[in-house]
Amino acid sequence: MPTVPHIERHFRANEMVRDIVIGMSDGLTVPFALAAGISGAVAATGIVVTAGMAEIAAGSIAMGLGGYLAARTDLEHYNTEQMRENYEIDHMPDKEKEEVADVFRNYGMDDKHIAPILTAMSADRKQWVDFMMRFELGLEAPDPKRARKSALTIGLSYVVGGLIPLSPYILIHSLSTALLVSVVVTLIALFLFGYIKGRFTGLNPLKGGLQTVLVGGLAAAVAFTLARLIG
Amino acid sequence: MPTVPHIERHFRANEMVRDIVIGMSDGLTVPFALAAGISGAVAATGIVVTAGMAEIAAGSIAMGLGGYLAARTDLEHYNTEQMRENYEIDHMPDKEKEEVADVFRNYGMDDKHIAPILTAMSADRKQWVDFMMRFELGLEAPDPKRARKSALTIGLSYVVGGLIPLSPYILIHSLSTALLVSVVVTLIALFLFGYIKGRFTGLNPLKGGLQTVLVGGLAAAVAFTLARLIG
Repeated sequence: MPTVPHIERHFRANEMVRDIVIGMSDGLTVPFALAAGISGAVAATGIVVTAGMAEIAAGSIAMGLGGYLAARTDLEHYNTEQMRENYEIDHMPDKEKEEVADVFRNYGMDDKHIAPILTAMSADRKQWVDFMMRFELGLEAPDPKRARKSALTIGLSYVVGGLIPLSPYILIHSLSTALLVSVVVTLIALFLFGYIKGRFTGLNPLKGGLQTVLVGGLAAAVAFTLARLIG
Repeated sequence: MPTVPHIERHFRANEMVRDIVIGMSDGLTVPFALAAGISGAVAATGIVVTAGMAEIAAGSIAMGLGGYLAARTDLEHYNTEQMRENYEIDHMPDKEKEEVADVFRNYGMDDKHIAPILTAMSADRKQWVDFMMRFELGLEAPDPKRARKSALTIGLSYVVGGLIPLSPYILIHSLSTALLVSVVVTLIALFLFGYIKGRFTGLNPLKGGLQTVLVGGLAAAVAFTLARLIG
């Protein structure tokens, strides 16, 4: 995943908010749909809680570690490409200059205006490499410390999100009542989550709320129907 | 999520491959861990299959629709920012020119070399906006048709991935044998998947294979232990 460039004036959600959104949107949806699905096939809340907790453990680890590895891979990819750009500048500087020129030609600039850019660029190795990384390859230098923080944030958000639909099955003995409470509580939570997410990402909050309710509701309805057909 | 820039010479996985990777890595991991987890708490394969199928339905819909909405949101975000850049160029062109100049100043260029860039840039409105979108905000124009294709690819990859760990429970009557076969088959599948993914993304395939085995294995082990403690 490419990282978000640093020079941003317009609003963009910061990285921690994005990690919370990633973890919580799946955490609210999948354990909810799974618990509702199993409710369609079993007779007691015990197995729903067991399966739900197993899902929350599996999902949070898979998403958290997945996020960790993705961030590490981004970093390795960046370093590999940076080494390659350095190599190319050493061994074929003219070709690299042509690539810089091509970037500016794409924006309708004449070669006579591009020449001084090439001179300025080639005077500073580090800036030249940075330019190639960003403008030719579209890569930003990732934060080396991000992987661990990101993994924890995603994983914990998944657990918090997943405990919301599951808690009625833990607290209420009657399966049908627990299912009903879980559906109501989770649809409200999904709406609030989508609403707040919409505000953070600059989209229409009402639309954001309805979208997350739709995804969660549809996933739960299909899981419920399928489990009832099989179970 | 920012999309990957188009002008890329070095190897990067294409969008469809990335969607398959997104869907299949979670599809192989979470249903595997869930099924193994439930196996630690129940006595028959029936409930494992029911819960596993409910999870595959829930996960594929949540991830597929999630991918659809993310792509739509990217598109809306791009269009909103594009309108804002157009507005700013109309109403405060000098400020926008300063922002273009700042981009190049960051690369150590003199104002006398930046001036002709500004002249060329402001002569073509569309190119000017494109430049601001890409180099100031780091946004690429998303493919409007991508959302639907992306949703289907992610969802189907999740289903295919999820059926691999689940099929032993469908085909084998003995729970302990099914669990064993599922663990062996899925760890092999996770290794092959990580290996191939590593080749596609240009990383060390062996390392990629071991990483996905580690994530899947850890998620399954924790889910199994937790379910056994609760169940």
